[in-house]
Parts: sequence; C-alpha cells; structure tokens
Amino acid sequence: MAFLEEIKLHEECGVFGISVPPEKQLNPVLETVTALFALQHRGQGSCGIAVSQNSSVSVTTGQGLVADVFNDRAVSGLNGQMAIGHVRYAYSSDLSGSCAQPIVIRHVNGSLCIAHNGRLANSAQLRNEAEMHGAIFQTTGDAEIISHMIVRERLRTNTLEDAVLNAMQYMVGAYSLVLMSGKKLIAVRDPNGFRPLCMGKLDGCVIFSSESCALDAIGATFIRDIEPGEVVVAQNGQVRALSSGIRVKPSLCVFEYIYFARPDSVIDGLSVDLVRQEAGKCLARADDTPADVVIGVPDSGLSGAMGYAGQSGIPYAVGLIKNRYVGRTFIQPKQNQRESAVKIKLNALSSTIRGKRVIMVDDSLVRGTTCARIVSLLREAGATQVHMRISSPPFLHPCYFGTDIPDREALIAHGRTTQEIAHMIGADSLKYLQLEDLSQIVDGTKYGVCNGCFTGRYAVPVPRDPMQLINGRSEE
Amino acid sequence: MAFLEEIKLHEECGVFGISVPPEKQLNPVLETVTALFALQHRGQGSCGIAVSQNSSVSVTTGQGLVADVFNDRAVSGLNGQMAIGHVRYAYSSDLSGSCAQPIVIRHVNGSLCIAHNGRLANSAQLRNEAEMHGAIFQTTGDAEIISHMIVRERLRTNTLEDAVLNAMQYMVGAYSLVLMSGKKLIAVRDPNGFRPLCMGKLDGCVIFSSESCALDAIGATFIRDIEPGEVVVAQNGQVRALSSGIRVKPSLCVFEYIYFARPDSVIDGLSVDLVRQEAGKCLARADDTPADVVIGVPDSGLSGAMGYAGQSGIPYAVGLIKNRYVGRTFIQPKQNQRESAVKIKLNALSSTIRGKRVIMVDDSLVRGTTCARIVSLLREAGATQVHMRISSPPFLHPCYFGTDIPDREALIAHGRTTQEIAHMIGADSLKYLQLEDLSQIVDGTKYGVCNGCFTGRYAVPVPRDPMQLINGRSEE
Amino acid sequence: MAFLEEIKLHEECGVFGISVPPEKQLNPVLETVTALFALQHRGQGSCGIAVSQNSSVSVTTGQGLVADVFNDRAVSGLNGQMAIGHVRYAYSSDLSGSCAQPIVIRHVNGSLCIAHNGRLANSAQLRNEAEMHGAIFQTTGDAEIISHMIVRERLRTNTLEDAVLNAMQYMVGAYSLVLMSGKKLIAVRDPNGFRPLCMGKLDGCVIFSSESCALDAIGATFIRDIEPGEVVVAQNGQVRALSSGIRVKPSLCVFEYIYFARPDSVIDGLSVDLVRQEAGKCLARADDTPADVVIGVPDSGLSGAMGYAGQSGIPYAVGLIKNRYVGRTFIQPKQNQRESAVKIKLNALSSTIRGKRVIMVDDSLVRGTTCARIVSLLREAGATQVHMRISSPPFLHPCYFGTDIPDREALIAHGRTTQEIAHMIGADSLKYLQLEDLSQIVDGTKYGVCNGCFTGRYAVPVPRDPMQLINGRSEE
Amino acid sequence: MAFLEEIKLHEECGVFGISVPPEKQLNPVLETVTALFALQHRGQGSCGIAVSQNSSVSVTTGQGLVADVFNDRAVSGLNGQMAIGHVRYAYSSDLSGSCAQPIVIRHVNGSLCIAHNGRLANSAQLRNEAEMHGAIFQTTGDAEIISHMIVRERLRTNTLEDAVLNAMQYMVGAYSLVLMSGKKLIAVRDPNGFRPLCMGKLDGCVIFSSESCALDAIGATFIRDIEPGEVVVAQNGQVRALSSGIRVKPSLCVFEYIYFARPDSVIDGLSVDLVRQEAGKCLARADDTPADVVIGVPDSGLSGAMGYAGQSGIPYAVGLIKNRYVGRTFIQPKQNQRESAVKIKLNALSSTIRGKRVIMVDDSLVRGTTCARIVSLLREAGATQVHMRISSPPFLHPCYFGTDIPDREALIAHGRTTQEIAHMIGADSLKYLQLEDLSQIVDGTKYGVCNGCFTGRYAVPVPRDPMQLINGRSEE
Repeated sequence: MAFLEEIKLHEECGVFGISVPPEKQLNPVLETVTALFALQHRGQGSCGIAVSQNSSVSVTTGQGLVADVFNDRAVSGLNGQMAIGHVRYAYSSDLSGSCAQPIVIRHVNGSLCIAHNGRLANSAQLRNEAEMHGAIFQTTGDAEIISHMIVRERLRTNTLEDAVLNAMQYMVGAYSLVLMSGKKLIAVRDPNGFRPLCMGKLDGCVIFSSESCALDAIGATFIRDIEPGEVVVAQNGQVRALSSGIRVKPSLCVFEYIYFARPDSVIDGLSVDLVRQEAGKCLARADDTPADVVIGVPDSGLSGAMGYAGQSGIPYAVGLIKNRYVGRTFIQPKQNQRESAVKIKLNALSSTIRGKRVIMVDDSLVRGTTCARIVSLLREAGATQVHMRISSPPFLHPCYFGTDIPDREALIAHGRTTQEIAHMIGADSLKYLQLEDLSQIVDGTKYGVCNGCFTGRYAVPVPRDPMQLINGRSEE
Repeated sequence: MAFLEEIKLHEECGVFGISVPPEKQLNPVLETVTALFALQHRGQGSCGIAVSQNSSVSVTTGQGLVADVFNDRAVSGLNGQMAIGHVRYAYSSDLSGSCAQPIVIRHVNGSLCIAHNGRLANSAQLRNEAEMHGAIFQTTGDAEIISHMIVRERLRTNTLEDAVLNAMQYMVGAYSLVLMSGKKLIAVRDPNGFRPLCMGKLDGCVIFSSESCALDAIGATFIRDIEPGEVVVAQNGQVRALSSGIRVKPSLCVFEYIYFARPDSVIDGLSVDLVRQEAGKCLARADDTPADVVIGVPDSGLSGAMGYAGQSGIPYAVGLIKNRYVGRTFIQPKQNQRESAVKIKLNALSSTIRGKRVIMVDDSLVRGTTCARIVSLLREAGATQVHMRISSPPFLHPCYFGTDIPDREALIAHGRTTQEIAHMIGADSLKYLQLEDLSQIVDGTKYGVCNGCFTGRYAVPVPRDPMQLINGRSEE
Repeated sequence: MAFLEEIKLHEECGVFGISVPPEKQLNPVLETVTALFALQHRGQGSCGIAVSQNSSVSVTTGQGLVADVFNDRAVSGLNGQMAIGHVRYAYSSDLSGSCAQPIVIRHVNGSLCIAHNGRLANSAQLRNEAEMHGAIFQTTGDAEIISHMIVRERLRTNTLEDAVLNAMQYMVGAYSLVLMSGKKLIAVRDPNGFRPLCMGKLDGCVIFSSESCALDAIGATFIRDIEPGEVVVAQNGQVRALSSGIRVKPSLCVFEYIYFARPDSVIDGLSVDLVRQEAGKCLARADDTPADVVIGVPDSGLSGAMGYAGQSGIPYAVGLIKNRYVGRTFIQPKQNQRESAVKIKLNALSSTIRGKRVIMVDDSLVRGTTCARIVSLLREAGATQVHMRISSPPFLHPCYFGTDIPDREALIAHGRTTQEIAHMIGADSLKYLQLEDLSQIVDGTKYGVCNGCFTGRYAVPVPRDPMQLINGRSEE
Repeated sequence: MAFLEEIKLHEECGVFGISVPPEKQLNPVLETVTALFALQHRGQGSCGIAVSQNSSVSVTTGQGLVADVFNDRAVSGLNGQMAIGHVRYAYSSDLSGSCAQPIVIRHVNGSLCIAHNGRLANSAQLRNEAEMHGAIFQTTGDAEIISHMIVRERLRTNTLEDAVLNAMQYMVGAYSLVLMSGKKLIAVRDPNGFRPLCMGKLDGCVIFSSESCALDAIGATFIRDIEPGEVVVAQNGQVRALSSGIRVKPSLCVFEYIYFARPDSVIDGLSVDLVRQEAGKCLARADDTPADVVIGVPDSGLSGAMGYAGQSGIPYAVGLIKNRYVGRTFIQPKQNQRESAVKIKLNALSSTIRGKRVIMVDDSLVRGTTCARIVSLLREAGATQVHMRISSPPFLHPCYFGTDIPDREALIAHGRTTQEIAHMIGADSLKYLQLEDLSQIVDGTKYGVCNGCFTGRYAVPVPRDPMQLINGRSEE
C-alpha cells in the first residue's frame, strides 16, 4: 500500500549536482538546497551537500529532512563554484555513523565527492577484492566501494573520467552518480540505466539531477537524460560526453514510473503522471464492474484513480483524507488494540462514500496489511462495496538494484491467487494491471525497463545471497 | 491563495478534551495526542496537553508540531483520568514566553486548565477592568483573561460551571473552550457559536473536540455539536448540559466551511467537503467559459475544482504538484530574483496543462500575490488560457473573532473591480462565488453563519481599535 | 558534605540588576550575563534576564547554566537601558513550566519584572488571602505572590516604591529582590536581611547584586550593602534610599558565610574567605590531635583547612582531587555495587595521604553519607588515621528562609552524639566548631546573623506546616 | 598561562580500553564512561566509545563533554564484552566531519577499532605512500593512517598483533593506542613512550588507560605502565606482552608531569603531584625574595605554589578564585574594552592580597598575555609586589608529538631575557625553574623524558614542514 511510508517500498536516494561557470554569480549551495526539496520524496532519512570553493571541498550532512538540516544557520556563508547534493531514505546508525552522503575522500590526486543512487549487485565481491588488497572501509555503503574502485583506477589513468570509465567495467548493478573533484562535475549512469539521471541548464550552469522536477524547482531548463553507460563531464562551463562502451540491455526500473518518481517528472521521455493515468485507464478498459465512485489511495494512487474515472465514466471523488502532520516518531495507542495507525493517517469521507459502490485504486500491493485496514475503513464509512484496483502487476520478486523490499514470503501476492488476496484484504473484488498492458504503456520510454519485481527476470545476473560474503569473516 | 500557508489566513487554534470514567483503562494522553494530529491543520505553531491524574494536574507544552513535541519521551509515563489538548498557529515569543496552551492556573478552589479557540471582541476592556481590581497578567492572551473572569465569578458561586455561566455574561466574541478542573471536564461554546465544538464518545469516555475529524481519528462516535451558548459538564462518566440563556443570533464563522476545517469534518450538520464541492458546482452553473481542463490549487482548492468539473463536464485533472517537504525555515535563493518560492512549493504538470484552456479553482483570494505567480507558472507550462474561479465571495473586511487577516489595504479585492483583480493576477478571467449562492449552500447549517469578512456586517459589536486600551498605559 | 552538590544544601537564587543612564553606551545585557556567570554558584538549574528598552520589556529564561542559555545567539541583538538577571538552583517542572525568573507581569500601571532570592515564611497565608480575593496563580513560587502583593498595593499608591513599602508590611521571611518597571530599577532587602544584597557602580550605572563578586567580575566598584528593610530606587542615574520602617532584629543567614557565598565576596562588611579561614583556626585552637597533614574537602572545605593548617602548624596539602567534568546526568555503574559516585567525583592523592594521620576539614555535615565514603576513600589511599573537623556547629534544625534542607530525621546530627556520628562516618575522631566560636567570628557583620539551623531559634515566627494551606483544597 | 584553557597548550587525547572475561557481568560501557570522566582533562572537544558485543562492533561519538554525549539515553542498552573510549581536545569540522574517535574500520579480516593519543612525526610521508598505492582517506587524522598501516601489514601476517608490530617499524613519533578487534583488546605504546599508557585490573577484567587516575575512578587496581615499544594483547582474560624490538631512547613528554596529566596520576613510576610540588620547592630553594604570601594560578599552578610555600616558609594562601561556570561560548562584553575575560574567569581575593608582597606560581608561561592581566588584577586588589615564579624552564621550541603549541614567535620566551619577560607581564620579578632542576626532579621516571620544548633537542628526527606534503597536490 502506498499510503504509509513505513510499510512501503523505499527508493534509496536522490542525487543532484551543479557547476557554475567562473563569470556567473549563482550560489550553487542555495540552488542545491532548493533542488533537494524537490527530490525529498526520494529519501527523507538523511541528506547532505558538498560544495567546492576554489578547489577546496567542504561537506555538510545530517539526519532528517532537508528543511531541518539545511536551515539558515547551516547554509549561511556556504558558497562556491560547484555543489552536489544527496537525499537518502534511511539513516542507519552504521558502524561509522556516517552513511549520509555525499561522501568525501582524499586520495593521491586530491579530493573526490560522491553522491550515489542505486545498488551494486556485486558489491560484496568488489568489497572483498578491495579488502584483499588492503583496503579498509569505514561504512557498509556502495559509495565507499565505488570510491575505492575509482581511486584504484585513478592510479593508472591521466584523468578522473578515465578512471570512472575503467571502474565501470567492474561494477554490476544500479548506479546513478554525481561526482565532484576540485575542478570537475561528473554524472555517471550505469549501462542498464536502472535509475534516472538527467541534465539541465540554468544561466550557463550545468546541472545534473535524479529527476526533472528538481530542474523545474530551480527554474532550470531540461536538456536531456544521461544515457545508460554514459559519463558526462562538466568543467569550466564546457560539457563532454563519454561512453563506457558497455553493451547491455538498458532497463530503467519500472517502479520509477509506478511509484518512486514525482508525477511532474519526465523520465527517459515519458511523463510519470501520464504513465500512471494511463495505467488507470487500462484498468478501466479491462473492467466492467458497476460502481458509483472511483477514489485513489493518497498520494500515489490518485493519478491512477483519475485515469480510471476518466476512462470508465464513473465519477472521481476524494474518498480518503490524508493527515500530513503525523510524524515519524508517532506514538501508537497500543492499549485499545484498534487498527488505529490507519485511522490516524487516513480518514474516509462519509459524505462521498456512504451508500456507494467504491472503486479504490492504488499503485501497488506489497504486504497488503494496511490495504485491508483501508477497505475496512471504507466499509465503516458506509461503502456498500469496495473494489480494489492496482495499477501495476502483482509484486512477486525481490529487487537487487536499490529498492528495499521485504522478504518474498511477506509479499501478499506470493503464492496466492487474486481471489485469495481479495479475500485477505476484504475487498469485494481485486484486479491488477496486466503485465502486457504495463509493457505497452511504458513502451515509449527511450531505453527499456526492468520489471524483475513482476517477472523474476533481471537485466543482469543477481547474487545468490548478497550478505554472505560480507558477514562471513571476522577478525580472530 | 491557499497554497502558501505563510501568506494565508490563519485559524487560531484547535481544542480537545477527554474524560475517562473510573473503571476504564484508556490512556487519555495517547488519545489526545492522536486527536491533536487530526486537528493539526488548525495550528502548527505550538501545542500542549494537560492531564489530570487523581485530581493532580500536569501540563506539557512546546513549540512546533504535535509530532515534535509529543514524542515517545514526552509522552512516556503520562496517564490519568482526563486530558485536554490544544494546537495553536503562532508561537509568539510573548513577554512570558508561555502563550502555548493549555494554560493552568491555581486559584482558591484548586486548579483550572483552559484550552481556548477564538478571540474576544472586548478583551481590552475586560483586561482593563481586571487590572483595575489588581489582577496581574503574565501573557497577552485571551485564555488568561477568561481564567480571571471565571475565577472572579467562582468566588460567588458554588460550582465551576456556575462561574463559567456567569462569566459568559461579560464575554463578547468567539470562544470555544475546553476546561478541566480536578474532577470535571467542561465544554463551552460562545452564544454566537463562532467556532465549532462537538461532543463524541468512545468506550464510555466523554470527548470534546473542535472538529469531528478528531473523533474519527481516535475511533470515537460523534454525538452532537455543542450548541451556541451551551456549557456541557462531564464528571464521573455523567454529562450535564447547561444553557447560558444568552440570546444572540448564532453565527458560525463561514470560513470554517470555506477553508479552516478539514474536509472530512461535519460542522453544525454540514459536511465541509460537500459545502466546498457545492461551491464549485455553483461557480460552474454561473459560468459558460469554454475550457479544456479544471484544476484546483492544492490543497484547499481541490474540492471546489472537483465540484466545478463535475457540474460543467470539463475534465478534472491534477495540474499542480505540491511539494510537501518544504520547511518553515526555507531559505530562498534571493540572488536570482526569480519568483522561486512558488516554484519550490508548486510545480505545474506540463503533461496536463500544455496547450490547454485551464479553469483554476481556489477557495479564496486574500492578497493575490501568489495567485499571480501560479497563473504565470501555468502559462510557462503551456496553458493557453487561465481562468481563475474563487469558491467564495470577495474578501473585503477584517475579522475580530480569531481569524488573522492582513490590513484592509492589503486585501486585493479592496477597492478593485473583478476585472481589475483579474488583470493584476494575470488571469484571462476571474469569477467569484456570489454571496447569495454561498448563503444558500450553507443554509442547512444548524445555527446560521457569520460572513462579516464578505459583508462587513458582524454578529456582535466590534471594537474601534482593540489595541488602544492595552498599550495606552505604562508604569512611571 | 560539601563536595557533592546533589546531596548538599541548596541556596535558592542569585539576583542582579543594572541601570544605564541615558547618555551611556554600556549594554546592560552583556554586563548581566557576565554578572550571572559570577553568581552561578547560587543556582545552576535555570537562569534568565529581563531587559528594558525604551520602557518595553523582553525576557529570556532557560534551563541550565548561564553559558548554555545565554549563548551568542540568545544575546545577539539584546540591548536596552536596564536589565535584571536571575540564577536559580532548581528547574522544577512546575505546573506552568515557567518557574524560571525573572518573571514579568502586566498590571494596570504597566509591566513589572521581578527577580527574587529567599523564601517567605508566610507564603501559604498570603497566597490564600490573595486567592480569596480572586487572584489566580500560574506558578507555585514566591515571586508570583510578591507580584500580587505589590500590584494590589499599587492600586492605592502613587508610585511603585510606595507599593513595595506597603507590601513589605505583610511579607514575613527572606526576600532580596531586584525589581524593574519601565523606568525604575529597585532593590529590596527584607527587614531581617536574611539574604545578601549590595549596590555598586560602573561608569555611571547603578548596579544591584546578591554578592560583591559579581561587581568584581564586571569591573564595577562596591558601594555598600542594601540595609535590611531598605528599598533603593534607581531612575535616570539617580538613587534614592527609602526605609520600610519595620523594626526587627537583622539576621543574615549565617550559612552564606559558611557555604553559600563565594569566598571572594564581602557580605555586610565581612570577607567570606576570612570567616571560613577563621573558623578553621578556631577549630585548630580547640584541638590538639597529633596529625601529619591537613586537607580540605573540595571546594568549600578548603578555606577552613587552610586556616586550620596555618593555626596548628600541621602542613596543609591537597589530599583530594575533584573531577570537574562529571555532569548532572551522570550514569552510575550500578551493577557492581561499589560506592562509585564518590570515586568518580573525588580521588584521594596517595602520594599525600599514604601512611599519614589526616585532619580533614569540611564546612558542614548534613546527611553524612558521602562523608563516610570519603573517609573510606582516604583509608584505601593509605591514611592511618582520619580526623574529621567541621567548621560549623552541628546542623540540627530546618530552615524556612530559602535553604533547601532534608527532613530533620535525615540530618546526621539529629539525635546523635558527636562520638556516634564519628562512628557512623568511620572517622577516628570528629569535632565541630562551637556555636560561641562561630558567633564570635561573625560578630563583625553589620547587622547580625540567623543561626536557626544550629539553634532552632529563628528571627521571625515560622509556620507549623507550610505545605498545609497550599495543598488542602481542591476544586470539586 | 594555565588558567585559561583556550590560550593554553593542548594535549590531544586520552584513551581507555576494557576487556571483560566471558564469565563476568561487568558492563564495559559504563566503566568506560566513568573512566572517560576521569580522563576528560585530556580533551573536552569530542569523545566516543566503541563496544564489542559478540564480536559485533558499534560506536558512538559526539561533540562536547562526556557528560553531554554519554547521557542516559545514549548509554541505555549498550553492553558487551569489550569497550574502548577516547576523549579529544578539538572537534575540528573536518572534511568528513568524523574526526571524533574511536574510528572503526572494516577490512579483509573483520573490524578494527582504534583510539589514538599522540602525533606521528612522519604522517605526511606515510599518508603519501599509502595514497600512492591507492588508499583513500576520509579524515586528516593520524588514526586513519595508522589503520591503513596495520591493515596493510595484516595482509601478510597471521595475527593482528603481528601486523601492529610490523607497522610500528614504519611509524615515527608519538602513539599510545588502544585497539579492539572482535576478540582482542590491544595496547600499544610507541618506542619512545612519548605519551603515557598503563594497565590495570578490576574483577578479572583487563584495563588500559592513558592515566592511572581513570583506574582509581572505576575502582580498578594499577598493575604497571605499558613499556615504550611494547604491545600488550588481552584476549579471553589472558594477557600477553610483546616487544617491538625497536631501540630508541625512551622519552616521555615532560609536560605530562608539568601540566597535562592529572595530579593524582602516577606516570612511569612518578606521582604527578609530587613532581609539581617538588618543582615548587626547587623554585623556592633558588629564591630568597622576601614576600608575605605564596599563591598559585588555578588549577595547574597550585601544586607548585604549595611546594614553594612549604619550602620557603612563606604562608600559602588562596589568592585567586576561579569561576568554574564560564562556558566555552562565552560572550565578551567587547564594548568597554576592559580586560574582562580574565576578570570573569578569575577574581583576586583582596582579603588575602591587599598590602602583601605576593609570590605567584604557575606551571608554565607560553604567550604571557593572560599572565600580564593576572598580575594587573593582583595589583588592583592591593598587592604591593608581584613576583612571578614558573615551575618549568622557558618554553622555547615547537612540539611534534601531540602538543598543540603556537608559532615560535608567539612564545613570550622566544628571543627575550627573563628580565624583559618580567617587564612585559608587569611583574616585579620573574624566575623560571632551571632545566637541570627539572631533569633532577623527573630523574626517577622509569624511561626518561623528552624536553624538546625547552631544549630544541628531540628524541626522534622531526619534519621540516609537516604540512608541505599533504597540501601540495590537487585533482585536475
């Protein structure tokens, strides 16, 4: 269910970078703060900004929202010629306590800042090899592994971008990177293009961003998506594009369209909102259930619901009000055993629902527990029927590329028929979007999609047990 | 414009109270926290909870959201038989630094806790009279004045409720109160009924709340509205209703329906959401502007837009995406002089807007400055026409009963024709809801409404200059 | 024992005020911050500063040390013509959460700020009378009661100082006050002069302070003590002294000399350090115990130990090192049941102690528990004998004037002979200062002392049970 | 001058470690917190604790005092079989923001935690070499360099301790380390023994600590100093001592005796307090200045003053009262140009000083500026003469081993005669301890001392400019 973040799938991160040409007066830190506000939906756990001023780098990271970390006091006095920023879902209290990004490292040729979105499928192997050569790690994150890879290659190359291109030969999986050295800003998208990354411009500045909505927020103009396997280098106002030459089937994570990205973003040529509306229309076309009203589960089910309503002619209405003030540290009144978490976050609009046959649309169904509670909420509010419609196919398989999913056994679609699921969530009926319909809807995307979570077929080989190698050793 | 809270009208407060009968195990503090989450839209500046445990009272107040102030640590160990809660818009750094409510006072007959929503029209006079008799004040708020009134009367009466009824004879203006003494929980609504206040029950507990949505949030059942001029006393699970006997024309603030209340609340018999949708329909009925799409300004313009779309047959769509992560301490990139605040908070959905004639609905137009920026945002996103529709009449007059409005001169409708306003905001056309239409829509409300902000005619006499008496004196 | 603050007697407060004449440039807020640093030993729980700028008053209070509350940010921009400050031992989480001082009240003639040191013996009676006339109280503190008294009288008088003089007729007990209205700074010392209060000047400014050490800290010159029963008014650079005319035996709390005040202060004509040294000399003159070394318990026993050593000819040495970094929220390793709190705060210097017969001097013995642990610490460090010497008489009776003492039963001297006490604390011998010796030492003080805690004879009538009246009532 | 920490020499760090045998119940975290309280004088900028529980490591670090960082909440739930702790003077806002220790790294054989006290003389060279082999650094600290050295060697050795012994062959300078792997606790002291490190035991636990005072604080028994060049391994309650075999002249930093260490510590066989007292006696023996009183500058001059007084027969007295509540963020009243920082922190006791010829003892004279202010303070308080005595030789040369000293030019003794210095600080006379006397006093130390700051002759070769290599490079 999309409405309770703590139970949802999690995107890992959002990245951003900006390079201001010498003669311009723009403060890249302020633009980055604004951009991170726009990317905040990609991660609310921690955030950070690294700024390069006259080739000297400083970094500020913190736990919480951008608005909390980058208040007036934190930003005051920060300025420079380049900045990169990062938002991240989790603030795990890792060994080093410093898994917030960007990370900054010093190596033989200077400093390097890295902001990373994605997950390496072969991180355990890469880490192991590096440790065998004496590398030490202060975090458990992929960003530190990627740093090692790049710096190792940097010893043998003349330029940072060559080192990046070399390192890409070894890295398998999802990585949309924004790198910053003393003089260069570099965008890197993995050969599969698992995660989005695009380029824009604003008053002569070069900008890289996970999503185009951040370009809009700062008033920048969208130029193009970074291509899968591409490395784009900005320096002194000039931009050079390099190709890794790695040939694999590009495969943007389809969940970017379904849930992760903001509806006002355009990714690889497709509007996210249109994809979601189209999914709702497809659901309606394949459906003839008589009903009085179509509602969406806020926020990610709304586009689909609107599409369904438009296609079916059944009126769209607001059936659930979401409380936007419930915090993360919410205290549950455990004593009375009611399913109150849902009631606190959502309230059904009786005036809309009472006596009605309701079509309720959500973007996906992962565990299904909260969905069951919403169905019950609608019935309490007087719905005579509740028909659940999911604007994506059944979620059945794990993801190895940056989506944080539960164990397969916890997936409600795992080993159950649609009818069994409908029964579990208490709905009068349940329908999913067909995989073929989804494929057709996103057919217009430039480079293809990965739908491994629906099919179990992934674009690259995936590890048997990625935790195995990491935890198998321990000092005497 | 409704979308930028810092520029909007402000409701002052939300109040809540719960009394748990002796034999029940419910923790009133946890229920109050949950209820305050649901009332948070009525005030995000400060909040507080007073709890009575075995007739001993403790209070916790703090700056910020309920989720910030009442975290696990703050709530841990709090329990009792009664609790009252309060949310408040502003956390003014008042003389005493303690204008957060509930306030707790000790007087000759014990302790008294007060949570107040509203504003007295004669507060300066009442304060002055009390000071003349030697009273001292530690804050500038009405709640302290009301305390003084009640305690002064308490010297002459046998019960707290009699003191309240006496004090009501002197107080003019808006006050929805929840009071708590060691043994009683009392709800008070002023004779005009300016602010909403209702009663519910949950597992034998008596509950008072500004809005019914808080009853839903804790799973309680709505019983009835507190009547204008009524005092309801809950003690030991028993409820007694008393009447102040004051006869004035009841006049609920009509802006509760238009903007302040949550759409899923039902106030004095009318669903807030239905009122807003109906207003949109009225606008559509009086309109024949050809257009391609109807959009609402998030969040308060959405119901009206949906109503307009349903009535007119023009498709409803999401045209503006609101960024919910922008904090209060947002840093504006002042250097580039762009109208960026709007861009950061709102983004136009080009896929919806481009090439379209747009009807944009909002609930009200106060200053109009941000509305102008949204119109411009839509044009940049490709709208060919932008027709502004306001689901309330022109806002022309000050409010003396708890709504924080700007100077009359700052009101965009002050001294301007509709056409002049349309020109100022850059819209192709502008239409307001007619006052008669609004009156008809809210005709079903139980006790009548105050629409002084539209008409300049108020339900009670209003002061010439309420600041005059307060500030006119100073110690030698 | 003096070394562990949490087990010690507590002074309640320190007060300070400064009035800057119109033509001077001094910032009274910065001077008050500095002065509060110097008075911090009189209270580390909370602190506050009220500043008057052009007759407009603002106040800042906070929990914790002056250095925490009045950091750069808090002080930035604060300025004016007058300021008063306060430090307080306890930050009790009182009903109103606002027992930090100065308190600021508004009354019929303007604003009044009050900083108070002391305790009224008849506060329950005064509060009761005020409540009977309809007064309400938001805290449980004496400062609010005193405000009520003064404001009530202010209705009948032409000036604030006359109201103060009238109110003094009703107040019994200890009160050293600094008051600030829009235009006047007023110092008040109760007719007994229980607590110290003095006046100084700095560059034309008039200054009032609990202790003279704060004058030294800001570079001011000591002028004189405020006399018992005196009211001193500073306005526009002029000073007027008024007498309450109340005739009682002046009686400064003798514990100010023994423990509360800083050694570098001079109170009512006597140097605190000299009193303490003289007490040590007296102990030595009455003692012929053979010993090898004299040590003091840090910090308050050091002066007495030095006096003892000088008089006796036995070498003085540092025998105990105090750890100054142990915080208030110190976590005790409870699992191993050792008397570790003492070990963490104090360490015995083996190099000084081993094989020695030790005379250990402390200023007083209240509960005696920690003293026992220090004796044991010395023995572990190799002391062959430990002779305890207390530079004040046995502490036997409660205090009603601002000293926070335990129940009589918890006083180690209560119902025990000196020999029994010596046995309890594990000392080879124990000697107290004789009451006559103490009386003789402080004979030079200008107005006499109160030694009720040693004798049970108090300078004013004391209540049977001061809590009785306050808690005896409760609202129906 | 010793009394104002911000102007003083700074020790870098304190380290601690404890290993609890399997069958014992002691919580090593609570013992480490207590020990860090006792070592807090060695660093007040940041602190941290790493704990190993079932071979899994977690670390908590923070800015500020131990009491601030390790409050109840932080410590709650932390437990394990081993813990190491660290206090550090500075919390530099380093690139990575993570220079607080212990640092924790993961390498091919598991995790390694490091707490370090000292400074490498060849760190720039070692870092450079590591980077040439592809190492990346996230901080600028020596601890990370040492980690790299050890891990590099670990690839070639069977045990961690062998890796440490190998790495020691390359490291030049000061390092007292406490290391913790999943199963071992290891203490390492550099071959010169620049910084102290000792071993103790408590109820079967093995303990390592920078100073013995931390052993006292937790009730542990001192066993012995770690020898210069020694590596001591604790595992499963067993202890093994290994020697690096490196032969250099041991040379404990003599300033540990003079200023850094706590007086109640015993280092390499000598009591710190006795050394300081003896230094005072030496000064007195070489002095026949007629005087009335001997005072010390709190806190580090007190032992010397007491020694001087005892030897000379001139009475010792407390002449300066130190305010212990002045915070780090102290706001200076800049407007009146007085030398107020000293007045706020110190007050002269007129009762002791007035009309007296004063001998004032301090442990060292670095810049001399604040000393000048104290002399002036004494004269204002009525001293007729002020004779300054320094219980160490003139401070003339930089330190490369962990003492943070100002530029040579800022040293008051640089290029000046004693008489010129006396004139600068306004003293009637000035005498230093003779170098030969100091040498004789510390002759009893087990392994010899480094007195390079007095002589310019260091125990190991020192770099020309240690910053040169680090900053000379930058990425293209």
